Amino acid sequence: MKKFTSVSDVKNLQDIIKKALQIKENPQSETEKGKGKTIGLVFLNSSLRTRLSSQIAAQNLGLNVLTLNAAQEAWNLEFADGAIMNGDTVEHIKDAIEVLNQYCDIIAVRCFAGMKSKEDDVNESILSQFEQHAKVPVVSLESATRHPLQSLADCITITENWKEDRKPKVVLTWAPHIKPIAQAVGNSFTEWMQEMEVELIITNPVGYDLDKKFTKDTKVIHNQNEALKDADFIYVKNWSSFDDYAAMPEVKENWMLTGEKLKITNNAKIMHCLPVRRNVELSDEVMDGENSIIYQQAKNRIFSAQAVFSEILDEINP
Amino acid sequence: MKKFTSVSDVKNLQDIIKKALQIKENPQSETEKGKGKTIGLVFLNSSLRTRLSSQIAAQNLGLNVLTLNAAQEAWNLEFADGAIMNGDTVEHIKDAIEVLNQYCDIIAVRCFAGMKSKEDDVNESILSQFEQHAKVPVVSLESATRHPLQSLADCITITENWKEDRKPKVVLTWAPHIKPIAQAVGNSFTEWMQEMEVELIITNPVGYDLDKKFTKDTKVIHNQNEALKDADFIYVKNWSSFDDYAAMPEVKENWMLTGEKLKITNNAKIMHCLPVRRNVELSDEVMDGENSIIYQQAKNRIFSAQAVFSEILDEINP
Amino acid sequence: MKKFTSVSDVKNLQDIIKKALQIKENPQSETEKGKGKTIGLVFLNSSLRTRLSSQIAAQNLGLNVLTLNAAQEAWNLEFADGAIMNGDTVEHIKDAIEVLNQYCDIIAVRCFAGMKSKEDDVNESILSQFEQHAKVPVVSLESATRHPLQSLADCITITENWKEDRKPKVVLTWAPHIKPIAQAVGNSFTEWMQEMEVELIITNPVGYDLDKKFTKDTKVIHNQNEALKDADFIYVKNWSSFDDYAAMPEVKENWMLTGEKLKITNNAKIMHCLPVRRNVELSDEVMDGENSIIYQQAKNRIFSAQAVFSEILDEINP
Repeated sequence: MKKFTSVSDVKNLQDIIKKALQIKENPQSETEKGKGKTIGLVFLNSSLRTRLSSQIAAQNLGLNVLTLNAAQEAWNLEFADGAIMNGDTVEHIKDAIEVLNQYCDIIAVRCFAGMKSKEDDVNESILSQFEQHAKVPVVSLESATRHPLQSLADCITITENWKEDRKPKVVLTWAPHIKPIAQAVGNSFTEWMQEMEVELIITNPVGYDLDKKFTKDTKVIHNQNEALKDADFIYVKNWSSFDDYAAMPEVKENWMLTGEKLKITNNAKIMHCLPVRRNVELSDEVMDGENSIIYQQAKNRIFSAQAVFSEILDEINP
Repeated sequence: MKKFTSVSDVKNLQDIIKKALQIKENPQSETEKGKGKTIGLVFLNSSLRTRLSSQIAAQNLGLNVLTLNAAQEAWNLEFADGAIMNGDTVEHIKDAIEVLNQYCDIIAVRCFAGMKSKEDDVNESILSQFEQHAKVPVVSLESATRHPLQSLADCITITENWKEDRKPKVVLTWAPHIKPIAQAVGNSFTEWMQEMEVELIITNPVGYDLDKKFTKDTKVIHNQNEALKDADFIYVKNWSSFDDYAAMPEVKENWMLTGEKLKITNNAKIMHCLPVRRNVELSDEVMDGENSIIYQQAKNRIFSAQAVFSEILDEINP
Repeated sequence: MKKFTSVSDVKNLQDIIKKALQIKENPQSETEKGKGKTIGLVFLNSSLRTRLSSQIAAQNLGLNVLTLNAAQEAWNLEFADGAIMNGDTVEHIKDAIEVLNQYCDIIAVRCFAGMKSKEDDVNESILSQFEQHAKVPVVSLESATRHPLQSLADCITITENWKEDRKPKVVLTWAPHIKPIAQAVGNSFTEWMQEMEVELIITNPVGYDLDKKFTKDTKVIHNQNEALKDADFIYVKNWSSFDDYAAMPEVKENWMLTGEKLKITNNAKIMHCLPVRRNVELSDEVMDGENSIIYQQAKNRIFSAQAVFSEILDEINP
């Protein structure tokens, strides 16, 4: 694997899921693989799971780990090409990346959507600079439009929880929130599920359809109850409007996932990428109920990251 | 040892002191013990000694170390059970702990008293959530009412500095400060000293008595000079009022520990957990004088932590 | 090497450059040298290159690495001797250093000039406390008046880029900036180049002469074009006035280094310590042009630090 920023970087999805599950069986099986190599984990945004799971995964592979909270620990970054840097910004992202090239064998970066300019976010204004300027493999730790390490963990989790012969019905349902949230997790889950042997349905209120670039021909239903019927897995996630970018059109029905709504499903497993706003996105009852596989998802973040770093090391040390 | 949040988690105090002193002789004696295991050090508050000594101790045992500055690096935490999270908090402490369960073999946490609600602090509103939800051993890196790794280091330090046959007279003396400080160190020192072969006396101004739950039948004297007489060890520490919670009742006498006051002691050794406000809690003369064993105490924080982590690893890998 | 805060701590400059270049050939050649030893990297200021390169260098030597963002993670520090600490400061720098003595085998510290009191900065009010109180070797990660790890990396870089028999002409040129910047890099580059086999010239506007203590008898020219003529290396860096301390006297000519100015040089290699304000200090054209060896300089920071740490370990483990 040469880089990891979307599902298209994965040669064979079933193979990497299998590899991740083998790693889960024995996380210490490749402790020499990264010896003498360095991974830089660059955080332009907050992180709990991604931060910790990436560190564990890297340490399990024997990699040196550098963790950088870019804004707080280093310098205020300039992102505009050709900028005359006579303002608040102290270092151009291009130069920071070129320096990381000198120091790291793998560069991993978290850079959320700014939620201000649709064009900037759609074009991945930050991640694209890493893809353009990095001379070593780049791993996305969530970017403006995707969260691929999460999605791979989601695929691992669904694989672990589905033993029937038929395709499971997987419903990605929008959930309420109090402020505009990026579409990254929704987009990413959608494009990974399209590669899995599942029946995927997306449900969200009118005005909240995800970017067609990601949904493609996946069925989108605006009635949550209709969508949830007979679901085997429900993925709960908020996102703001894509069309009217970052807006939050009024929603009259209550889209919070509750125990009552679970009854119309096929005893569905509940998924969420975390952090979750309890009793807003889903009820305590669902979060703490036996159908939740949310913490298992969180654990699988380790093996998702470790499988990806391991495949990248295969490329570096052929 | 299954967890470490107070002296009651220690089976035999003399044994763990002996173990810590053996580790001090050879800190690298168990470098394989933690291999492949992960400790998460979660800081909800500032820390210098605890942060660094815990990292060294963990590294000496071969543990992977994850250090998380929870508020700055991760998400704003919700602590209220059943909260409808439609405000500033982004992740419930329960969920953060459940995720740490997935990632760590030991969870260590620093969570100071909030000094606003006596009830919250007395009930250890944060640490208790860790004790309730953690599925792996929990280590306190200081909580609302106790600082047990400090107290164990204090026991080690007194042991190193006392070779006479009789019990030493140990005086815990209140010291001035400019703002309300928690009682955690005072409480904790008291309950650990009650398990040691020492004569313990507490001295503080009227209005500053510690919680009876900790002082029990330990003698409390409101006259500092009387208390300091013939002392072999003096532990200097400020705390705010427990009865009139977090208040700072007026104190007319000067309780700052000075060289003059040392004269009435039995050439007492001076202890303080640090950080210390020089020339407020104690004078430069005392801090920098030859009776101070304060930096030795700080060093012993490594061996206190290492002995505890080591005993916890014994429980994990029987 | 007993400490590393200026060029005078280096016994033989050519030897340590040679050692650094050997390390560059094989960075993993001494992975056991620091085993069981701990280096504390204390940051009182922002850092990207220094932070990451020091961590890599230390990890390559097998050292345990403790990284402390002093202000954010620990306590607000008091610097005044004899202070009555009844204000905002919580811990005296002396005590923090004494604790680091207990925890670390090497203490490395970054402490910029405050740019307020010339006397404080000239006297290295912070670094001098480390030099005075540290009982283990101290390494400067940039201080008020010097940046020696950068300067050593600069020497390595010039050595790599000069194969002719004659001495290269090296020009340190002042560059524009929007706010008052310390003289540390300029001072330090000057005193290291004075030890190299080069012809050094400094050029800066009137009012911007560096401290005579550093420039000594090095030629200072106030006409940039005249200075750049036939240059083999150009080191670009801003600094504020030393005489009228931290002032920014008006400069009428444009001192930004451009492609046009490069033409009067001997096809000079361009150097900068980074971070750089593009199109203020130098143009994009120069920064991204083939004459720039700026990223190579950044890479050499690893080997500069590793050579220094390695020589210090030789002193610790003779």
